[in-house]
Amino acid sequence: MMSTVLFSYSQLESFVHQVWLKNGFSEEHAAMATLNLLEADLRGIDSHGVARLQGYLNLIQVGRINPNPNMTIEAEAMATATLDADAAVGLVSGTWATDLAIEKAKKCGIGMVVVNHSNHFGIAYTHLKKALSEGFIGISFTNASAFVAPAGGKERMLGTNPMCYAFPSPDGRHVVVDLATSAAANGKLEIAERTGKAIPKGWVMDENGEPSTDPSILKKGGMMIPLGSFEELGVHKGFGLSAVVDLFSGVLSGANFGPWVPPFPAFAPLPSETVGKGIGHCFWIINPEAFRTRSSYDQALLTWIHRFKNSIPLNDEIPVVIPGEPEMAFYHHRMEHGLPINAKVAEELKKISEKFEISL
Amino acid sequence: MMSTVLFSYSQLESFVHQVWLKNGFSEEHAAMATLNLLEADLRGIDSHGVARLQGYLNLIQVGRINPNPNMTIEAEAMATATLDADAAVGLVSGTWATDLAIEKAKKCGIGMVVVNHSNHFGIAYTHLKKALSEGFIGISFTNASAFVAPAGGKERMLGTNPMCYAFPSPDGRHVVVDLATSAAANGKLEIAERTGKAIPKGWVMDENGEPSTDPSILKKGGMMIPLGSFEELGVHKGFGLSAVVDLFSGVLSGANFGPWVPPFPAFAPLPSETVGKGIGHCFWIINPEAFRTRSSYDQALLTWIHRFKNSIPLNDEIPVVIPGEPEMAFYHHRMEHGLPINAKVAEELKKISEKFEISL
Repeated sequence: MMSTVLFSYSQLESFVHQVWLKNGFSEEHAAMATLNLLEADLRGIDSHGVARLQGYLNLIQVGRINPNPNMTIEAEAMATATLDADAAVGLVSGTWATDLAIEKAKKCGIGMVVVNHSNHFGIAYTHLKKALSEGFIGISFTNASAFVAPAGGKERMLGTNPMCYAFPSPDGRHVVVDLATSAAANGKLEIAERTGKAIPKGWVMDENGEPSTDPSILKKGGMMIPLGSFEELGVHKGFGLSAVVDLFSGVLSGANFGPWVPPFPAFAPLPSETVGKGIGHCFWIINPEAFRTRSSYDQALLTWIHRFKNSIPLNDEIPVVIPGEPEMAFYHHRMEHGLPINAKVAEELKKISEKFEISL
Repeated sequence: MMSTVLFSYSQLESFVHQVWLKNGFSEEHAAMATLNLLEADLRGIDSHGVARLQGYLNLIQVGRINPNPNMTIEAEAMATATLDADAAVGLVSGTWATDLAIEKAKKCGIGMVVVNHSNHFGIAYTHLKKALSEGFIGISFTNASAFVAPAGGKERMLGTNPMCYAFPSPDGRHVVVDLATSAAANGKLEIAERTGKAIPKGWVMDENGEPSTDPSILKKGGMMIPLGSFEELGVHKGFGLSAVVDLFSGVLSGANFGPWVPPFPAFAPLPSETVGKGIGHCFWIINPEAFRTRSSYDQALLTWIHRFKNSIPLNDEIPVVIPGEPEMAFYHHRMEHGLPINAKVAEELKKISEKFEISL
């Protein structure tokens, strides 16, 4: 049983907001970064929420995250743009980018915005939340530092490169597909490590490319495996999807890509050369009303959800899960009953609270 | 060893073109349908090429494919459109849709076009070939009749719903990620069936949801499994991706979706109700020059390919394969040395040749 400390959302919100402010963020950016960071905790993706706050602060301290960025538009067409985030944290540049993409989708039916010179942006979903609430479909990609080997390879070449696709539902039960293109997300390895459990074959391999079930293998030079896990189960597909995320987020945007993406830990050495600026993201916002009437879209989506929810389950007692459903349940529960923060993470927050003299 | 008959590309091209003409296609549509059908054989996706010609003709005969469609734009915004294909074969409507998306991408940076009231469109890649040759990035989705169960389910709810992402390379070695969102494509089951081999665990299950290695299981009420195959290897991710394809191709476009997508075999019963028109596709065409200069895009893409191609392979003698590389090798080889057509398929072509009095 993992020890946790319960915080209310408003407690954490006020605390995290103050932390950003004390670290040089504007009011506006602090609000964006807080909302986007805490969304991970609310949705049960504990690895990407306040557990990473200290990591972001380290990056500010070593000068890799710019707390007061001058973000600019590098290139623009009617429905598209390339943004240079000026080393902003992705928690901020993601909102800036999707706000612009929403404006473009209103005018053109779709808006596509890529971001370079950015930093890690939290969970992919969070940047689509506002678009969803306004009735838009959203897509969010980011590349990340390399822990994943290509199919047929044994070198760290790709991040866990997530893809998020979000479809608004009129009843608020949005369909949200949010996945790492690796067989397992990093957070799952961390949980197994904390609980001392072996992980399934197909998630990782050791530095020699041999299969491993050791959740600490990444610290020993090991690598993660793309979705599909094995040749006969289509590991080349997971590799392909991860490549797609990297090509849009890095090659198209002008950010780094592949093994050149800078690492999240501030103490980790930077790649010895760069092929672009910072890390990159890619967003698409789509207006369903450009394609069909709102009511016909709504009706079709509700029919889709209803039919899948009521399809025959493998186990009579466990209905089929619609993508996004578990995270939504977490969200409502934690908003009401508070957020159980891992005790070690809570200790870290306490230290931050003392250092910056912000009550928690 | 499978018995094959060798045809030159021009032989097959001339034959297939005449077949469409004799079945009521215009010159223009016959040319599109021929190019798009044969691209599958050229790229080594033998299940989707001339092997399906008789299937398409059956659909024309029973009136489900309209050989002379009046395709119309149902809805349009600056960068987007919804097309009603008037029961055209997807081999034709796909080209019409991507041509429109290319025009939009030239003006707006991106063009997104969905198609409803369509039929099967061959391989997803083929519709992006022209865009690639003009230097555009392309994305192609289609839904298809239901053979795949959702994660946690045992009912046929989704097609093998392919996604294709294609990135143009200045040296012609385009990066093409083209995958069925199921663990294995239908064609792989067909090959195993012909050779009498058991298939890997994780591809299919029987009608009761029990794991199976029988390649004929679909004929016995069985189902395919999404990419990821098993709960611990992320089968919910493959389900999510398949859902994304269905939501764009069906729910957004106004076509059928989920279990309501009409089947390819003309003799198979249609679903007893419909929730949209025909089957649906979704295409995005993106102009890299809207995001950065052509030369910087080209250089980044070539660096990406070169670095991945030279990353450390699992097996010293087998370099890492770039997505699209094997299909490109097939293409060049078959264009030069001819297409080895399965003997049974060649017999079928001979019958078509006799019926329509077209020499082959």
